[in-house]
Amino acid sequence: MRFTNAFVQSGVCGPSRMSYYTGRYASTHGSSWNFVPLPLSERTLGDHLAAHGRPVHLIGKSHVTADAAGLAVRGIDPQSGAGRRAAAGGFQVVARHEDTPAHRRHYNAWLRERGYGGEDPWATHAAAAEGPGGETLPGWQMRHAHLPARVRAEHSETAYVSDLAVEFIRSAEQPWVLHLSYIKPHWPYMAPAPFHSMFRPDRSTLLPRSTDPDEHPVIAAYRQLDECRSFGREDVARHVRPAYMGLVAEIDRQLGRVLAALGESGQAAETLIIFSSDHGDFLGDRGLGEKELFYDEIQKVPLIVVDPDPLADAARGTVSDSLVEAVDVATTLVAALGLPVPEEWLEGRSLLPLLRRTEHSPRECVFSELDYSMREVRNFLGLPPLHPCRAWMARTAEWKYVHWQGFRPQLFDLQSDPREQRDLHGSAAHGAVRARMRERLFDWLATLKRRASADVALIERLGHGPPPGIHIGHW
Amino acid sequence: MRFTNAFVQSGVCGPSRMSYYTGRYASTHGSSWNFVPLPLSERTLGDHLAAHGRPVHLIGKSHVTADAAGLAVRGIDPQSGAGRRAAAGGFQVVARHEDTPAHRRHYNAWLRERGYGGEDPWATHAAAAEGPGGETLPGWQMRHAHLPARVRAEHSETAYVSDLAVEFIRSAEQPWVLHLSYIKPHWPYMAPAPFHSMFRPDRSTLLPRSTDPDEHPVIAAYRQLDECRSFGREDVARHVRPAYMGLVAEIDRQLGRVLAALGESGQAAETLIIFSSDHGDFLGDRGLGEKELFYDEIQKVPLIVVDPDPLADAARGTVSDSLVEAVDVATTLVAALGLPVPEEWLEGRSLLPLLRRTEHSPRECVFSELDYSMREVRNFLGLPPLHPCRAWMARTAEWKYVHWQGFRPQLFDLQSDPREQRDLHGSAAHGAVRARMRERLFDWLATLKRRASADVALIERLGHGPPPGIHIGHW
Repeated sequence: MRFTNAFVQSGVCGPSRMSYYTGRYASTHGSSWNFVPLPLSERTLGDHLAAHGRPVHLIGKSHVTADAAGLAVRGIDPQSGAGRRAAAGGFQVVARHEDTPAHRRHYNAWLRERGYGGEDPWATHAAAAEGPGGETLPGWQMRHAHLPARVRAEHSETAYVSDLAVEFIRSAEQPWVLHLSYIKPHWPYMAPAPFHSMFRPDRSTLLPRSTDPDEHPVIAAYRQLDECRSFGREDVARHVRPAYMGLVAEIDRQLGRVLAALGESGQAAETLIIFSSDHGDFLGDRGLGEKELFYDEIQKVPLIVVDPDPLADAARGTVSDSLVEAVDVATTLVAALGLPVPEEWLEGRSLLPLLRRTEHSPRECVFSELDYSMREVRNFLGLPPLHPCRAWMARTAEWKYVHWQGFRPQLFDLQSDPREQRDLHGSAAHGAVRARMRERLFDWLATLKRRASADVALIERLGHGPPPGIHIGHW
Repeated sequence: MRFTNAFVQSGVCGPSRMSYYTGRYASTHGSSWNFVPLPLSERTLGDHLAAHGRPVHLIGKSHVTADAAGLAVRGIDPQSGAGRRAAAGGFQVVARHEDTPAHRRHYNAWLRERGYGGEDPWATHAAAAEGPGGETLPGWQMRHAHLPARVRAEHSETAYVSDLAVEFIRSAEQPWVLHLSYIKPHWPYMAPAPFHSMFRPDRSTLLPRSTDPDEHPVIAAYRQLDECRSFGREDVARHVRPAYMGLVAEIDRQLGRVLAALGESGQAAETLIIFSSDHGDFLGDRGLGEKELFYDEIQKVPLIVVDPDPLADAARGTVSDSLVEAVDVATTLVAALGLPVPEEWLEGRSLLPLLRRTEHSPRECVFSELDYSMREVRNFLGLPPLHPCRAWMARTAEWKYVHWQGFRPQLFDLQSDPREQRDLHGSAAHGAVRARMRERLFDWLATLKRRASADVALIERLGHGPPPGIHIGHW
C-alpha cells in the first residue's frame, strides 16, 4: 500500500528519526534537533523489541547522539555494556554509517580495500569529482553537482550499505528485524555514473516563491542561510536537481538488489517492508534550500508498506490518502510482530487496520515541529541560545496552521491553495479557522505522553484505591 | 522573608516534590503522581550540586520512586552504584523515612531501641492510640484523631527526624546542604501528647461548599472518594482538625530544636534556610478532604527564606506578596551557592533578587497540574487507564483558570471572590479573560524545557553554523 499523505514529525534528520525510532513526537522524546542527545530514559523500537528477545539490527545511518552527559550524571561508564547500548539507540549495530568522520570509518576502510587511497576516501572519492587535471573537486561545492562521483557505482555509499544488507539477508538464520538506513539522497549532492547524468536540468518544475510582500520573519531569516542564498538562484537549483534525482534513481536500483536477495533467499513472502524517509528537500522550491520549514515538500514523505499477511491481500497494491505519521511506524511494527503495544510510550497508531481493512479511527490532523535554536537563524533574529525558538504545525486535509513561538502564525487553505502560496495569517475571514487549529495544537501539547514511566498495570491498580496498608479518609 | 503567594507545581506529594527537586514542572519531569518513577534522564538538585562536589544530604521523606523498569531497559543493575544513586533521586541519603513499610524500617528499629515492641511499632504506637482496655486504636480511623499517639512526644516521627538533623548539624565538618524533610502534618492524623489536645474543635473556620448547583464533573467525582465523604461531614472535620493543628505545633517545636542546634554550633549566621511544604490539606474546607484540586488551600504553601548574606539585610524580616513557585527553590539554591545555574534544565527563577532587592522580573502567573489517572476518580468517570486525565491551573494575582482535558474549564475572579466560590466558566462577560488565560497555558506548555539534553555550549556553537567538516549550500 502506498500512502500519499504520510508526514514526518520534524523536517530535519535527527528529530524525525528519533520520532520514527521512539514512536514519540519530538516534544516528548526531547531530541529536538540534530546533535541533541536522545535522553537516557527514552526507549526506541530497538529497546521495546529487545524486551521480547527480538533485536532490531542497524545497517547504515541512525543519527542517534549518545547522551554522554546523562551517562556521566548517572555514573555509567560509556564503554560499559549499558553505556554502549544507550549510545546505539537500542539498536544491535551491524554496521553504522553516518555523515561524520567517526561514523564513516568502516566505509572508508571498505573503499581502501577496493583501491581508493587517501586518508578519507569518502571525501576525496565518493563525495568528490575529478577535475580535468586530475584534481579533487569536492562535492560540498554544488557547482560540481553535474559531474560523476569519483567512485564506481558499485562502490558508492548507497551500494556499500546495500551490499551489507544483501549479506545480512543471505546469512540470516533466525527471524530478524532490520533498520536499513541510507544517507543518500542528501548533501553532498553528487551521484556516481551513470546516475549523475540521467536527468536534464531544464525538465524540473520549480515551485515559485510566494509573491506575498510580507514574508514571515522566521522564513525571511532562513533565506539568509547559505543554502537558501544558493538555491534562491534558479540556475543553481536546475544545476543540482539532476544529481539529487540521480541519487534517487540509484537508491531505486540498489533497493532492487536488496529485494531480489530477499526473494532469492525465500524470505520475501514473510517479510514486512516499510519504505520511508526522514524529510524532503526544497532544492530551490520557493527559492529555498535544504529543509526544516513546514511546507509539504519537506513534511510529506514517501511511505510504502508491504504487509505479507494474507489479511492484507484485499487492499494490496492500493493507494491510501489517509493522514498518517512517522510515529505510526513503531506501533505498526510492534503490532505486526504480535507483541503487546506499550501504549504508555508510543504516540503513533498502527497502520495494520488500514492495510488489512479492519476498523480504523482515522487521524484528522498530523503534527510536526521545529527547533531552530541551533541554526544561524536564531542569531539572524537576535535571539539568545535558550530563547524558545520553536514552531509547531497542525495539518488537516483542509488546513495547515503553524504556530511560531513569539511570532505571528501561518495559515494555508490546502484545498484552494495546495501549493501554500497565500498565507492567511491576517485574513479576517479565517479567525475561526485559526482558533480551531490552535485548539488542536493545545490539545496535542497537553496530551503528549510524558508520563511514560508509569506502566498501565500500575495505573490500573492504583485506580482502584491506595496501595495495601494505606487507608485514607476512613472514619 | 516570608512569601504569602508561594505555589506548588502539583497539589500532591510526589509530583510536587519532584518539582522542588528537579526545579522543573511535572509535565517536564514526567513524574506526574505518587509512585510514578522519576525518569532516569531527570536531574535533581542533588545531581546538579554533586557535579560541583557538593552532595545534598537527605534526612526524612523524599517520595522518589526508583525507575526500576528504566534501569532494566538500560541494563543497569539496581544494586550497583549507578542503580542505587538513581533510586535515591540524586541525594546522599543520611536516613530516609517515608510512609511505606520499607522506608520506615529505620524508624521502627529506633522505636524498638526505645522500648516500643511489635513488628511495626510505627503502626501500633506512633500512628495509633490506646483504647480503654489497652487495645490498639489505629490512627487510620479518623474517629481516634482526638486521642494522643501511643508514643511520647520525643519519640514521634517528627522528633526522630529532628534528632537526626540535630546530630547531622552538630557533627558537620564541611559546608553542607541538607534536605530535612518531615512527613507530618499528614495522615494518619494523630499527634502525641500534649499536641493532640492543644486546639479546640469549635474554633476552626471551615470554608463553605460553593452553592453553585452545577458543580464541575471532575470535582463532583472527587466527592465520591472516602476522604471527601468523611470530610464532607462537618463533625468529622471539626474532630480531625485539632490533631492536624497539633502536628503543626509539633513541627514548630521540633524545628526550634534544629535551629537551636544550628545556633549552638555557630553555623546559623552562614546557613541559608528555606522552609516550605509540598501541598496543603482541605480538612473539610468546601466539604472536601485531602488535596490535589486547584483551590488556594492546596496550592498555596508556606515559604520562608532566611538568606544569611548581608545583601539581604535591607529586606530581612519583610513579607513579599510576589508570585513565586516551588520550582524557584532549586534555582535559588544553585545561585546562592555561587554555582552556574543549569538554565537548560531549571524552569524556576532565583529568589535572590527578591531577597536582596536587586533587579527582578516578577512572575505574572504561576502554574500547577494534576494527573488523576491513578485515582478512583478516573473509574468513577468511566475513563480507561491511558485516558488523558489531566488538568492545569494558570493563576495570576487576579484570575485562576483551570483547564480540565476533556471537560469544561473553571475560572475564578480572585479579586472579588478570593474564596473561589463562583466558577465563572459559563459567564459570557468573561470570555476574553478565559481566552487570555488559556493562551498563557498554551505558551507555558509550548515552552517547557523538554530539550534539556543539549547544553548551552552546544546550542551556542551550532548557532554559528554547521560543525567542522560540513559545508552546506556552498556554490
